[in-house]
Amino acid sequence: MRGLKVAVIGGGSSYTPELIEGFIKRAKTLPLRELYLVDVAMGKEKVEIIGNLARRMLKRGGLTTQVHTTLDRKEAITGADFVLTQLRVGGLQARIMDERIPLQYQVIGQETTGAGGFAKALRTIPVMMEICQDIERYAPEAWLINFTNPAGIITEAVLKHTTVKAIGLCNVPIGMVHNIAGLLSVNSERIRIDFAGLNHLVYGKKVYLDGIDATAMVLKEIVEGKSYTMKNIPDMKWDPDLIKSLGVIPCPYHRYFYMTDQILEEELSQLNQGKGTRGEQVAELEKALFTRYQEESLDVKPPELDQRGGAYYSDAAVSLINSLYNDTGEIHTVNILNQGAIADLQPNVVVEINAVVNRSGAQPISVGRLPKEVVGLVQAVKAYEVLTIEAGITGNYNKALQALLTNPLIPSIERAKKILADILDHHRGYLSQFNA
Amino acid sequence: MRGLKVAVIGGGSSYTPELIEGFIKRAKTLPLRELYLVDVAMGKEKVEIIGNLARRMLKRGGLTTQVHTTLDRKEAITGADFVLTQLRVGGLQARIMDERIPLQYQVIGQETTGAGGFAKALRTIPVMMEICQDIERYAPEAWLINFTNPAGIITEAVLKHTTVKAIGLCNVPIGMVHNIAGLLSVNSERIRIDFAGLNHLVYGKKVYLDGIDATAMVLKEIVEGKSYTMKNIPDMKWDPDLIKSLGVIPCPYHRYFYMTDQILEEELSQLNQGKGTRGEQVAELEKALFTRYQEESLDVKPPELDQRGGAYYSDAAVSLINSLYNDTGEIHTVNILNQGAIADLQPNVVVEINAVVNRSGAQPISVGRLPKEVVGLVQAVKAYEVLTIEAGITGNYNKALQALLTNPLIPSIERAKKILADILDHHRGYLSQFNA
Amino acid sequence: MRGLKVAVIGGGSSYTPELIEGFIKRAKTLPLRELYLVDVAMGKEKVEIIGNLARRMLKRGGLTTQVHTTLDRKEAITGADFVLTQLRVGGLQARIMDERIPLQYQVIGQETTGAGGFAKALRTIPVMMEICQDIERYAPEAWLINFTNPAGIITEAVLKHTTVKAIGLCNVPIGMVHNIAGLLSVNSERIRIDFAGLNHLVYGKKVYLDGIDATAMVLKEIVEGKSYTMKNIPDMKWDPDLIKSLGVIPCPYHRYFYMTDQILEEELSQLNQGKGTRGEQVAELEKALFTRYQEESLDVKPPELDQRGGAYYSDAAVSLINSLYNDTGEIHTVNILNQGAIADLQPNVVVEINAVVNRSGAQPISVGRLPKEVVGLVQAVKAYEVLTIEAGITGNYNKALQALLTNPLIPSIERAKKILADILDHHRGYLSQFNA
Amino acid sequence: MRGLKVAVIGGGSSYTPELIEGFIKRAKTLPLRELYLVDVAMGKEKVEIIGNLARRMLKRGGLTTQVHTTLDRKEAITGADFVLTQLRVGGLQARIMDERIPLQYQVIGQETTGAGGFAKALRTIPVMMEICQDIERYAPEAWLINFTNPAGIITEAVLKHTTVKAIGLCNVPIGMVHNIAGLLSVNSERIRIDFAGLNHLVYGKKVYLDGIDATAMVLKEIVEGKSYTMKNIPDMKWDPDLIKSLGVIPCPYHRYFYMTDQILEEELSQLNQGKGTRGEQVAELEKALFTRYQEESLDVKPPELDQRGGAYYSDAAVSLINSLYNDTGEIHTVNILNQGAIADLQPNVVVEINAVVNRSGAQPISVGRLPKEVVGLVQAVKAYEVLTIEAGITGNYNKALQALLTNPLIPSIERAKKILADILDHHRGYLSQFNA
Repeated sequence: MRGLKVAVIGGGSSYTPELIEGFIKRAKTLPLRELYLVDVAMGKEKVEIIGNLARRMLKRGGLTTQVHTTLDRKEAITGADFVLTQLRVGGLQARIMDERIPLQYQVIGQETTGAGGFAKALRTIPVMMEICQDIERYAPEAWLINFTNPAGIITEAVLKHTTVKAIGLCNVPIGMVHNIAGLLSVNSERIRIDFAGLNHLVYGKKVYLDGIDATAMVLKEIVEGKSYTMKNIPDMKWDPDLIKSLGVIPCPYHRYFYMTDQILEEELSQLNQGKGTRGEQVAELEKALFTRYQEESLDVKPPELDQRGGAYYSDAAVSLINSLYNDTGEIHTVNILNQGAIADLQPNVVVEINAVVNRSGAQPISVGRLPKEVVGLVQAVKAYEVLTIEAGITGNYNKALQALLTNPLIPSIERAKKILADILDHHRGYLSQFNA
Repeated sequence: MRGLKVAVIGGGSSYTPELIEGFIKRAKTLPLRELYLVDVAMGKEKVEIIGNLARRMLKRGGLTTQVHTTLDRKEAITGADFVLTQLRVGGLQARIMDERIPLQYQVIGQETTGAGGFAKALRTIPVMMEICQDIERYAPEAWLINFTNPAGIITEAVLKHTTVKAIGLCNVPIGMVHNIAGLLSVNSERIRIDFAGLNHLVYGKKVYLDGIDATAMVLKEIVEGKSYTMKNIPDMKWDPDLIKSLGVIPCPYHRYFYMTDQILEEELSQLNQGKGTRGEQVAELEKALFTRYQEESLDVKPPELDQRGGAYYSDAAVSLINSLYNDTGEIHTVNILNQGAIADLQPNVVVEINAVVNRSGAQPISVGRLPKEVVGLVQAVKAYEVLTIEAGITGNYNKALQALLTNPLIPSIERAKKILADILDHHRGYLSQFNA
Repeated sequence: MRGLKVAVIGGGSSYTPELIEGFIKRAKTLPLRELYLVDVAMGKEKVEIIGNLARRMLKRGGLTTQVHTTLDRKEAITGADFVLTQLRVGGLQARIMDERIPLQYQVIGQETTGAGGFAKALRTIPVMMEICQDIERYAPEAWLINFTNPAGIITEAVLKHTTVKAIGLCNVPIGMVHNIAGLLSVNSERIRIDFAGLNHLVYGKKVYLDGIDATAMVLKEIVEGKSYTMKNIPDMKWDPDLIKSLGVIPCPYHRYFYMTDQILEEELSQLNQGKGTRGEQVAELEKALFTRYQEESLDVKPPELDQRGGAYYSDAAVSLINSLYNDTGEIHTVNILNQGAIADLQPNVVVEINAVVNRSGAQPISVGRLPKEVVGLVQAVKAYEVLTIEAGITGNYNKALQALLTNPLIPSIERAKKILADILDHHRGYLSQFNA
Repeated sequence: MRGLKVAVIGGGSSYTPELIEGFIKRAKTLPLRELYLVDVAMGKEKVEIIGNLARRMLKRGGLTTQVHTTLDRKEAITGADFVLTQLRVGGLQARIMDERIPLQYQVIGQETTGAGGFAKALRTIPVMMEICQDIERYAPEAWLINFTNPAGIITEAVLKHTTVKAIGLCNVPIGMVHNIAGLLSVNSERIRIDFAGLNHLVYGKKVYLDGIDATAMVLKEIVEGKSYTMKNIPDMKWDPDLIKSLGVIPCPYHRYFYMTDQILEEELSQLNQGKGTRGEQVAELEKALFTRYQEESLDVKPPELDQRGGAYYSDAAVSLINSLYNDTGEIHTVNILNQGAIADLQPNVVVEINAVVNRSGAQPISVGRLPKEVVGLVQAVKAYEVLTIEAGITGNYNKALQALLTNPLIPSIERAKKILADILDHHRGYLSQFNA
């Protein structure tokens, strides 16, 4: 057995130690032979810091994995078994603009949903297409595990426009499992959730405790105000009537769609108080993290990383890779083609859903129709996603404008046009598809 | 041949002379034997004014139709061939509240869409259920032609919860045909439009002039600022980029969904300037109309009625009745069960669509999938409609709250709750289903 | 107005006088400027006979149409407004083999259904692809009206594999209307039928007399044994229990699927008595017809043609062309893409269905789901058709074998293989796609 | 933990020792407290023989389970955790008639497919409805595990017409796994199959060996003539071209549909040679088995039972019960509502498919669309099943006739009528729904 070659595109991400920890935990079943951490020129310093930390962590973990840091994507991808994408086109500076531009027009600014996520998608799609061309050429059998946000949109773009075998992954579902386990004060392994929806718009249709329906109990806990959120998102108390009438478990990101007024007020207030956006706060956290990562004595994932928001990424990602590699047939919540599993959406769009994962890939478990309470929002956001992918691929202004207008967080054509103009202007260096 | 018995529920409406005119024009093919104008106690005076005007009009038209005005719905319905519903539960006073309540929370107030239309639906559904029980019992073979707004929601409620043969009708599609004929300076008979969507949310997928695709030409005219609207709706210039990127023809009501900021600003400005809402302006118009209707010398539809907004109702309604009665097989744009005609919506919901109409009813013409630019909005509004019907039938607060929240014009749970509370409070006299 | 150019591929067909008659009847609304009758070398004599007859008929009808007979398909197609295809690859000799081969294995032999129709489709698809390439190049705006059998399969092949605007047409539906009018002793214009199904497998879901449901009455007449059939098909009395339990009106061709034993017995008996197959009888009829066509004094469609089986073709074809040309919006029963009109079949397959026809084409009228009694047969035959098209295009033996096996008239793999071997052997001159 | 109460309806079946063995093997995770073996009066002797054998087997297995034999179904069901149905209305005598009647008309006679399965369904549905009424009343939370054939039809009847939580189970899929493992000479645990289709008409879309696609290899083995069948079905060599062109793995029962001529010949030959039908052979086997079961020394499942055809029933059944009871989330191939998992069939029909099974039930894994080669047969048989259920519930002759006619094994209305007449006549004692 020759062991695995894994390439991480965006290897300089501060989340990478999560992955490393995951590989160490699974070393018995996942023989990691070679790890390539790839980044772009502007991330060279970071990826080397991460590379060194990875080497120390792996050594302490007793692994003999070879760690390579490189700017040569082709070298990294060639012959890889798994390619992991966790890149951020334009870095945190671009993200901060994604957050700030909409806020100028009294519209929520968030890196993965609404206008901010839209801008990120436009920047990211062309880069992902290039990466996938490399995979098609140099590692056609590789699995692409995509963490890059907006993960649903990016994965759908890959599956629609390339032949790469791709699965999108997000830590929101696993985070919800842990969070709800916390609400009920039980071990997370006793909790199972029937997930269905879209990335960052996923619902728990039913929650089971030891296999017994506990949905009503969980809703009650949330109604009564128990904390139910995740890092990255303001920990705003859920409106009790919202939760009661919804009847299913929202994901933390649903706040943007349901509690829009409060979130907007909070974002504007933070900005006005000089605290900046979440992106600016993250930039501070990152700086501290990378300082920490450089400590020669550090050879484990530092606890500070949890503040960053990526909790459970290692669990989610490495256990998914394990299922693919070892044909386990375990159920993971992933972003894959719908194939009829959610009856209210087209078969060829990407959904976030429970799936059986084995060596041949991930097959979604049918959920039939969505509850009437949520189907309208899910369909509207999917329509936005489909248009965003078309805009990202073609650089067509009209598609881009209609995509934004279709997004439920954008209140009118007037503001859609202003926001789009600012996005196309500010990020033009990353949006060459619109300049052709 | 014994001739037709027609019952008009809400016969005291100021629109009724439109209908009368229509029956006079079609007298040769539609032998109107008996016309029953029914109203409730508070509309007694009005229905009598209308009854007298109708008699004068019919006489001048050379018809021998017997006109009855009555408060006894059962008598009117018994044995009727057609029952026309054009009622307004709570009258204009209720409508004015429907407009004013949302505006208090910086949300658009409109009688048929958004929160206002929602409130109207809740008040109207129980009354329509009672009317339909009478039809089931006393005229089971009658066709119900429903003009009552929100016409799509009301018709769907009837088709889901009764056995009455119902078709919903609106003057927006026929108005669009005339309007576009005007844009192109051609006779309206040369224009044909492939309509598809929902009531007050219908799109012209293609416009044909003499059978040749003229969609691009029409879009260009609208982009260049030619007036394209209808009474009842602010005549606001369409955003050129909106129209260009949309690629299909919106209906005038789409302004509420796309140009939300401008419309809201306009509504608030009218209110602040003391001009009141559209409902208040209509109340003035109505008062003048009824004074006019009482003139003994008046024996035709007075031209002032066009100001009221009901243009083409007579054409739309009486020619539909004619197709049903005389088995013409003509195409009408109506509100009927989808049956797969629009692939993106469930078969059992009501859509506004072109249909072939003959004695056995209306069969929709398939349009396949909607354009990607519009499918998200249409699906979201249909989800709102389905929940509104459930709320209207059951009086369930949770369904009502989720219905409002699902409506794209309602920005957040916070405002949804406040608006719903005001609606349930102000209209409680008409919402007994919520008090049970 | 320059008038129409019409090209008839297979112009030497004995049916062509039907078409000519139709054009003469519609001369006021369909200005036929040029008529090209195209045929292949082996049909040269016939096409000239037809050309001369056509000239005499048109002259008598008072038309100045120029009639061209030619073997040059490109010349005929270039700039045509309508291309009509009514070809028979291999002529009647090939048809006779299509009928005789299956009978050798105790399987029904029929030119358009079962194994015979399958063989005809394999021979015809490559030729139609070539014709369509000419249309794409030399008359891209032309309408292709396809009469070539199996008309549903051929039309689907064209719509799936070319960009030609095609509509398939068959005289079975119009024949059913006339036949049923005869059963009820009423004028055919008083009859309307809701058709849905596949070509030569179409059902009348409902029959209306003057717009009133007369289905039960018609079923009763058939149950009681009134003749209900058409030329080309043995006039076998329908089984009364079959008709009663079916609840909808079958087309004459359904006998092959429902009364298989009797039909097979009849066919074998005719063969054994030396009467030959229907193809052989038709060959005799044709010989007589062409002798008749050569009479210089003949300048109308001779009544003998009705014996041939093409009754109402002129009505069906020319009135369809009229609707396309003059944008009439009339309803025709045609073979077009399903687009969701029949819920039990995929949107991209061809169905035979009522459609509204105007200048922009034919749009199907939705029928929702088929009756439970018929859906299984329709789906099975459609599966056969889809596989047959794949086999006809690719020449793949496996697809061909599975196509035959899927056909409900083929009882087993053993016989499917033998029949397929004989087809590929006997017709190899026309099946070059299988030899590549 | 109080342990499980299990009721077996048709407890006197010769297969019951399979179940007992299964419970003994799983005793650690499935605490079987009480086992009720229920039968009807005519099965009293058998059920007591089985009861005694069960007691001996359980004792030897070290279990303290209480075994009850009874004719009182209500007592057995009351408070049960699982109800297993494995009944045979009319016993083997009725089965033999199911086989013999069609053969009189040169039509395949088989107990679960074709006309024989149809007759069995008509007899069984009314009895299952009564059993389900008992479960609704006396054990509403119980799981019904249905083995009664035709298992797909019976399970669909239960799910459409009762509120019982039911899962249908068949040993064909697990048999295919073992059979294919044998073909490849590997342990069955290394084989995984993507099953999709209907009961006794299920296909293996893909076979995986250690998670790697081995479908082509398996097809090759079958093409080359390796034995691939199961008891109960003639071990006829598969036609190599059939297998090659099919591209997916058929189940042994597919022989009836594809190799109809050979099977029919074989059945008729057996009959003519005086060997009787399979049912008659089984009657002999059963007699011998029951003699064996009465041996006081016998306290294990005797190897002779394998000859009977029920191999792997214990594995399939008890491991399914284990997943339901212990919330394992394992994948089983079961008969459950489609829910969109197979795109070519309606959501509300029962399919045989891989499903994730845990305490809350079985959720199907989406397979999207079926291969074009098999979809027609599957849809036709499902149409037959749906009509059969309607006939079985209502006793409507027309529905029954159309059901039979829709079945691909019935060649014509003539024979459908004769076979139906014989069925209704011979089994009239069990078909009271047709006599009402």
